[in-house]
Amino acid sequence: MDLSTVRTTSDGPIRVAVDAMGGDHAPLEIVTGTLSWARAHPADKVLLVGIPERISEVAGGPVPPNVEIVAASQVVEMDESPAHALKAKKDSSIMVAMDLLKQGRADALVTAGHSGAGMAAAVLKLGRLPGVDRPALAVQMITETGPFVLLDIGANMDSSGNNLYQFAQMGSLYAERVLGVANPRVALLSIGEEKGKGDQAVQQATQMLDENGTLNFVGNVEGRDLVKHMADVAVCDAMVGNVTMKFFEGLATFIFDLWKREFKRGIRGPIGYLFMRAGVNRIRDTFDYEKMGASPLLGVKGMVLITHGSAKRRMIEYALDAGATAGRARIPELIADALRGQPRRPGPVA
Amino acid sequence: MDLSTVRTTSDGPIRVAVDAMGGDHAPLEIVTGTLSWARAHPADKVLLVGIPERISEVAGGPVPPNVEIVAASQVVEMDESPAHALKAKKDSSIMVAMDLLKQGRADALVTAGHSGAGMAAAVLKLGRLPGVDRPALAVQMITETGPFVLLDIGANMDSSGNNLYQFAQMGSLYAERVLGVANPRVALLSIGEEKGKGDQAVQQATQMLDENGTLNFVGNVEGRDLVKHMADVAVCDAMVGNVTMKFFEGLATFIFDLWKREFKRGIRGPIGYLFMRAGVNRIRDTFDYEKMGASPLLGVKGMVLITHGSAKRRMIEYALDAGATAGRARIPELIADALRGQPRRPGPVA
Repeated sequence: MDLSTVRTTSDGPIRVAVDAMGGDHAPLEIVTGTLSWARAHPADKVLLVGIPERISEVAGGPVPPNVEIVAASQVVEMDESPAHALKAKKDSSIMVAMDLLKQGRADALVTAGHSGAGMAAAVLKLGRLPGVDRPALAVQMITETGPFVLLDIGANMDSSGNNLYQFAQMGSLYAERVLGVANPRVALLSIGEEKGKGDQAVQQATQMLDENGTLNFVGNVEGRDLVKHMADVAVCDAMVGNVTMKFFEGLATFIFDLWKREFKRGIRGPIGYLFMRAGVNRIRDTFDYEKMGASPLLGVKGMVLITHGSAKRRMIEYALDAGATAGRARIPELIADALRGQPRRPGPVA
Repeated sequence: MDLSTVRTTSDGPIRVAVDAMGGDHAPLEIVTGTLSWARAHPADKVLLVGIPERISEVAGGPVPPNVEIVAASQVVEMDESPAHALKAKKDSSIMVAMDLLKQGRADALVTAGHSGAGMAAAVLKLGRLPGVDRPALAVQMITETGPFVLLDIGANMDSSGNNLYQFAQMGSLYAERVLGVANPRVALLSIGEEKGKGDQAVQQATQMLDENGTLNFVGNVEGRDLVKHMADVAVCDAMVGNVTMKFFEGLATFIFDLWKREFKRGIRGPIGYLFMRAGVNRIRDTFDYEKMGASPLLGVKGMVLITHGSAKRRMIEYALDAGATAGRARIPELIADALRGQPRRPGPVA
């Protein structure tokens, strides 16, 4: 088994590679957030990857001593085809950053760039971990009592029961080691709580999880149970996960926009706001998705985290926190250990 | 082609069968809502199906002349297995009501009972419409500028591209004829706006919809686009649809509960509420899901509508409105006309 690309650092300084050029607000917001994080974490190191002149320009002065600028001459744009970008732009910031991870010069990588290109670059450059059939992209979702992990939200289409089973294991490790949840409750996201419900993949995964004694499998949860925090890890196909995550974003924004408008309406709205300001801030704080940081791509030989394309400096800092924690926890190694010699079943149940 | 069970009433009085015994609050809320609707629609007729003594008991007096009580001696409970219920309870209210539809004695059927049992009874008793491979359960979802139709939300698992294609046609007809949307924008719910994105079923359905000139196919929409009303009909697999619908319910409730708590907190909350009361009511009105009425089961030989298990009298009235409108529109006949002789492709695209 070749795990040479997975570092075994568990303590001590962590080295995070940041794709300075990826994202809607790159490089300004990425660089600003990264420098701020680096100043707050002087013992750790950041490798800022991109076009040096543009990074220096937005840095607006000398960078802290724990920041190293690594040159990359190209940029993958947000609307490029991943396949084309990876072929034509071998010296792009995302590809160079991925190389740093592969060479063991970084413990984690954070990008706000094109998520499809980031995932493709990770699979291409780093490869899958031994025992992992498919990587999965996970995201932290908000509930009142803390976040839960939802995966897969878009790494692969048409996942089998076996894939879901592996996602459950990877998600459980991430929840335990990065979010600090003891004995995470793992559930399959389905159309009913009863175990017989769901499509073929969910039914097969149910069987496999029932037979696996190591995870804290709590069965199926429904869409309405998610915000009730009935599971710490919710496992599903990418289509379900992606739609759910984006629907959350859309619906929460919609509802808050309605309130915003009411608090601005007429004379009564602004007066009401004066009285409700503390409450508004409490609710805003509950729904502060920037704190969710970044989405880990689980199952590849290296700790890659993809944050929101629209991330600004504050979210980049949270993304670096997530990257440093995940890098320190040696998530890829733990996944390889957990999935080595696991049962696997080809194809769907008849 | 046998469409003998599909009535051709387009004008004139409509006859709606109501399952008086199904639902968390049956029979009291079902009967109360139904009688109220019947009084408001004296030209139409209601067939109230259930245990006559229990119906009379909760009716609390003589029923209006346009209400006929039809006896059924059994009740399918909310937690029963549909297969068992349909075999063991042939004289249950849902089965007797389904018979009324089949015999042409009713134009539509409304139930708040066990949705799995309702769908199974419909398929068993009425059968699929000619040309329809699979029925789909649709729901109206809320946006600020009006509802859109989301389907399938749970009639079948593991739908193919061909199934999705048919769902698109059925959903479009429903949006046009029942919601009154001219030339409804039909979209596939997927993980990205680009047409190449999505799983195999979505990609196949995209091809078929691109080739079909009769629908107003607008491509893919993402989860975050739904509340922006970027489509009048959003088509997806049951797993995606069911999770999305229930997640809407869970998330909206969660957010409103947070606001409710803030408006009750300390001294400032209740004062803030006094100023915001009109705004709160406007928002509450936007999210008034009871107005959505009931979910049509599209693709069977008869107009069956399933409403929320927790529906109370007001929602039952809206459900009867939906049932009467859909019955009047002859949706099953329109679907049969539209799907007759349509292209069909077996299996997923390679």
